[in-house]
Parts: sequence; structure tokens; C-alpha cells
Amino acid sequence: MANDTLEGNRLNAIPRQQVSHTGLVRAVEGTLADFLASQIAALDGIDPSLGGFARTARDLVMAGGKRLRPTFAYWGWRGVAGPGADSEPLLPALGALELMHTFALVHDDVMDDSATRRGRPTAHRIFAAQHGARFGSSAAVLIGDLCLVWADQLLARTPVTPATLLEVRTRYDRMRIEAVAGQYLDVLGETDPASWSVERALLVARHKTASYTVHRPLDYGLALAGADDPGVAEAYRAYGMAVGEAFQLRDDLLGVYGDPAVTGKPAGDDLRTGKPTALLMLARRMATPAQLSELDNAELDRKAQIVAETGAPARVEEMISVRVTEGLTALASAPIDPEARGVLTELATVATQRPA
Amino acid sequence: MANDTLEGNRLNAIPRQQVSHTGLVRAVEGTLADFLASQIAALDGIDPSLGGFARTARDLVMAGGKRLRPTFAYWGWRGVAGPGADSEPLLPALGALELMHTFALVHDDVMDDSATRRGRPTAHRIFAAQHGARFGSSAAVLIGDLCLVWADQLLARTPVTPATLLEVRTRYDRMRIEAVAGQYLDVLGETDPASWSVERALLVARHKTASYTVHRPLDYGLALAGADDPGVAEAYRAYGMAVGEAFQLRDDLLGVYGDPAVTGKPAGDDLRTGKPTALLMLARRMATPAQLSELDNAELDRKAQIVAETGAPARVEEMISVRVTEGLTALASAPIDPEARGVLTELATVATQRPA
Repeated sequence: MANDTLEGNRLNAIPRQQVSHTGLVRAVEGTLADFLASQIAALDGIDPSLGGFARTARDLVMAGGKRLRPTFAYWGWRGVAGPGADSEPLLPALGALELMHTFALVHDDVMDDSATRRGRPTAHRIFAAQHGARFGSSAAVLIGDLCLVWADQLLARTPVTPATLLEVRTRYDRMRIEAVAGQYLDVLGETDPASWSVERALLVARHKTASYTVHRPLDYGLALAGADDPGVAEAYRAYGMAVGEAFQLRDDLLGVYGDPAVTGKPAGDDLRTGKPTALLMLARRMATPAQLSELDNAELDRKAQIVAETGAPARVEEMISVRVTEGLTALASAPIDPEARGVLTELATVATQRPA
Repeated sequence: MANDTLEGNRLNAIPRQQVSHTGLVRAVEGTLADFLASQIAALDGIDPSLGGFARTARDLVMAGGKRLRPTFAYWGWRGVAGPGADSEPLLPALGALELMHTFALVHDDVMDDSATRRGRPTAHRIFAAQHGARFGSSAAVLIGDLCLVWADQLLARTPVTPATLLEVRTRYDRMRIEAVAGQYLDVLGETDPASWSVERALLVARHKTASYTVHRPLDYGLALAGADDPGVAEAYRAYGMAVGEAFQLRDDLLGVYGDPAVTGKPAGDDLRTGKPTALLMLARRMATPAQLSELDNAELDRKAQIVAETGAPARVEEMISVRVTEGLTALASAPIDPEARGVLTELATVATQRPA
């Protein structure tokens, strides 16, 4: 499909001067919808069951979410491209990040056997309802694989020079390796939470969240701008890693104290699954021997209370605050467009003080 | 890593004039070994457990196999590049196909819960032995994901122009979509073998084997040569689809009548799992009512005998023969290098008359 056909009807979706978050998300989702419609048609033509398979993938992609990675990539680009640059050619590359993210979520949900995501049944549960649990997980693994390849196909439609596109791909490959490595450490940690540590939990946070959600998307945006400015790259790295870690630490707190009505996950989910988060590893380290032994055997509500009594949540709040400050300091002196600086400053707060 | 570092020590591995199959395979494996060593070192540096994870992936990649996809890609390239062209720059792209193939095999084995592959334990069984079945399948899914990203990273090191590389990637993306689609149809067929058909079994064969193993690798080789010759592309398509289907039909016969000592799979494996292959669908269609009812209830050995009595194996042998002839006819008039034509003619026989 020619680029003009693909993005023609999105031309007005991102006004060049001021990009609202909603406008950006809508434009990315429009690009995704167009791309997915053409892919579904092609697979439907081979066999109707493949069309159904592809439609399930589309529904998962379009089900929403914060669209954080395209947002960071957009502002990473904008920081060097400036307010006058045309953002419309970025849309396929931004959409690719969401396809890649659906791959990661679907595979993660199979591994965790999660029942719901964004308030809807997960991919493997949808397929399990059709032909049983084994088919459910097989089809979900394939949905993830499909989304990962689709991401490459959509990325390939980004109308930049081949050299720029290859540079973008290099950053993208690093991001994907880090996401896979982080997820491996995550599943490994869950096999033996008692022998895990705060340090390793933070290592997972750095790879699975900080790098994958914030740093690499910013870097990807920088490459999309065709920019090779070590000062900006370093500022994005420092900001991305610090804010990304803070983002994961907020997630840890929400995993124990979050309101299920807001997070969409059951209350105390991390306590139930025994996920060795930095918060829980810290609580074990800070606990008195009596607290530690109670922690292993208490009911869910009491566990949450003990964790609070160890002082770990307050400590994690401090860690978040230190990291946000660190990220904002790196940003303050970065040689980037002031509007991008302003939005990234705001995003640091939104991402780390959020209720869900 | 610079290309000269990566391939420097492989310079003499493929002599320019005459490439033996062993020489080609050795050169591709050398490229893979060098690439994987650098990736393992990088992951080891993050955490030793990641190094171990990466080493398991390496062992699966290096465990052997027929290396059919790099072989077809090489000869697809050679058909237009001619005998004087330097094949050494191809090696990363050829190695990438094997990494992608390891991804496909590891994910397939998780879906089928296969215990062995190439005479060794499958990825999920290796990891299950470390921390249980759930960890086993999660880690194996991640091994597949890792290999798929590694394939992209190795492909990116192919020293061709950015425009050629992007064209190669376009073909590669199509190949991956077809492989995923074929695998989805395959797992779908296994949920309800009784309602499957010869036609759908052949549709699976066309996507999962013909396209993925023969046609797309040839096409990938053609793109690596920077060639855009519709005559050659069409000859490769006709040859690839015909020979690839014949290859799968041979696999169907081996899945019932193959010698376990040669195939490395248990005797009558497809009969045991009820896999709805073209052979078995044909047997059901050709069976008398009495044979059909016996087929559903008989012991494994007797099942194989009934299938033979329906006449389906002889019919499949004919189908193989028709397809090989069709493939060779397309090849005979193709405007390609005579040596490539000779080897591809030989490969058509080797791939469809093999004992394993």
C-alpha cells in the first residue's frame, strides 16, 4: 500500500503546531486501524479462519491502553525536530511500537495465565473458549508472533530514507532484546521469589520497564528525526531510565495498594502471585523476624498491612521521588525544544503519580 | 560489531567458484557462532542468568538440522548472481533464516508439547527440568522471541545497500506472516481433525512448508542479489511451491511409515497425535465405511496398515511425483545460472525422496 493511501486520511489528525495527547493517540490508532484492515483482508482471502485470527489480534491492539511508547517516541522526535516539523510521516513507526507492545502483552499474559487485560478477556482465554486451553495458549503465542511481524511491516512503511529507517531499526532491535531479557528475568524471579533481591527486581524494572517503555522509545524518536546528537541521546537515556524505573516502582505500589476499580486488576494482585517486586523484596529486607514470618503466612489484607509496617512503601515513594528529580534534572539541561521539554516534564509526573 | 570483524574469519569458507553444500553450511554456522558469541557476552554482562538463557538458545540454533532455508536462499541468489559473484556478504542474511527457523521450531514444540527435536530435549523441556513445566513453556516462548529478534539483528549486518536490505526485509516479512498463518491453521486443524479436509491440509502445506521452506527463501536470495527479474521470480515461485508441497507430502508419509532411527521421531507419530495431514485426510476420503470405522479405533500398527490399504500412500507418491515434475519444468526454462539450475534440480529430489 502506498504511503499516501495509508496516511492520506490522517493528514489533519496531528496539527503541526500543537499536538494534544488525544490527537496524537487518535492519529496513531487511525494508522493502526488502516493497516490492520488491509492485513485482515489479505488473511481472510487465504482462509476465513485466518481472517478471524487476525481480527482477534486487531481487537487486542485497538482495545486501548495508555499508548505510552508512541507518546514517548513522538516527544523524543519532537525534542529535536522542533515545533514546525511535519509529524505525519512518523505515524507508521509510532503504530509499530503499539503492535510490538501487543506482542509483549499477549505473550506475558500467556506466561502469567492472566484472565483479563484492559478489562477484557486475554488472548489465550478468548481462544481457549473456542477450542480448549491448549489451543488457547498456542493461538495466543501465534497472535503475539503475528503482531511482532506486523510491527516490522508497519515500520517498513515509514516514509524516511532507507538509512534512517535502518538506524531506527537498530534502536528498535535493542529495545526488543531488552524487553525479552527483562521478561526472562521476571519469570525466573517468580520461580523462586524467596531467593530474589531488591537489586534483581530493579534490574528487571530497568529492562522490562525503564528501557522498554521510556528510554528506547525516546531514542527511537530521536533516530526517526535523523538526529545524531550525543547530548540529547544522553539526556533521553538519563531521563528515560530514571523516570522508567519510577514508573515501575509506582506499578509495584499499585500492585499492592491500587484500587481494583481503577487499575483493572484484582486488589493485592502482586501479593497473591508472590511476584518479587522491588517493593516486596524491600519489605522482606526491612522486616523484623516476626514480621517476616507473619508475612509468609498471613491473609492478603494483613500482608498488605505488614508490608506497610515495614516502612517499604514509604521508602519506595522516596525512591520514586529521587528518580523523578533525577530525570527532570537531566531534561532541564538537555538541548531540546522547550515544548517537548514541557510535555516530558509533565509525562514524568503523570507516569509516576498515576492511580492506575 | 563491524562486518569485517564478524565475517573476516569466514572469508575462505565459501570458495567463490564451487560451493559444496557442506562448505555453505559450515560458513553459515560459523557466522552464527560468531554472532551468538557476541550476543551471549552482552547478555552475560547484564546478568549471568541471561547468559545461560542465551547459551540455551545458541545450543538449539547450533544443534544442526538440514539448513534448507539458507541453502535455498543461497541458490536463489546464485541463480542470478552467477558463478563469479562473492557470496561471503550473504552470510549474515543466510544465518538470519536459521535463527528465524529456531524461533519457529521452539514455538511449534511448545504448542505440540514435543519432548525431543533433532534427538535432543526441546527448549521447554530443558527449562522445565530447571524450574517446572510453567517456567519451561514461558522460557521457551521467550527463547523463540529472542531468536526472532536476533534474526533481525543478524540480517541488519548484511553488507548490502540499505535499499537492497529493505527489499530483502519485505520478502522476509511475507515469509514470516505465511509461516505464522500456516502454523495457526495447523493448530486449528488439530482441534478437530475429523472436520478437516485434504484441501485444508494442502493449504497448511503451502503456507507452512512450501512458502516458508522453499519459495520465500529463494525469493529472499533473489532480493539479496538486488535482482528484479519477473521471469526468475515466477520460476522460483512455481518451483518453490511445487517442490515445497512435495516436501510436506513426503513428511506426511514419513510421519506414518518413517523409520524412527532415521527420522528421530517415534514411529507413526502423526497417527498417534491424529494430525490431519493430507495423507490421513486422503485416507479418510478414500476409505470404505468399514475401513473408516476401523481406522478410528485400531491400534497404531493396524492404523498404518489400513491407511496403506485405502490406497492413500500410493496416491500421495503420485502427488509428489507430479509436483516434482512441475517444479523441474518451471526450473528448466528459467533464465538462471546453469550450476544453480543443476543444484536446485538435485535439491528437489533430495528434499522429496529423503528417508528423514
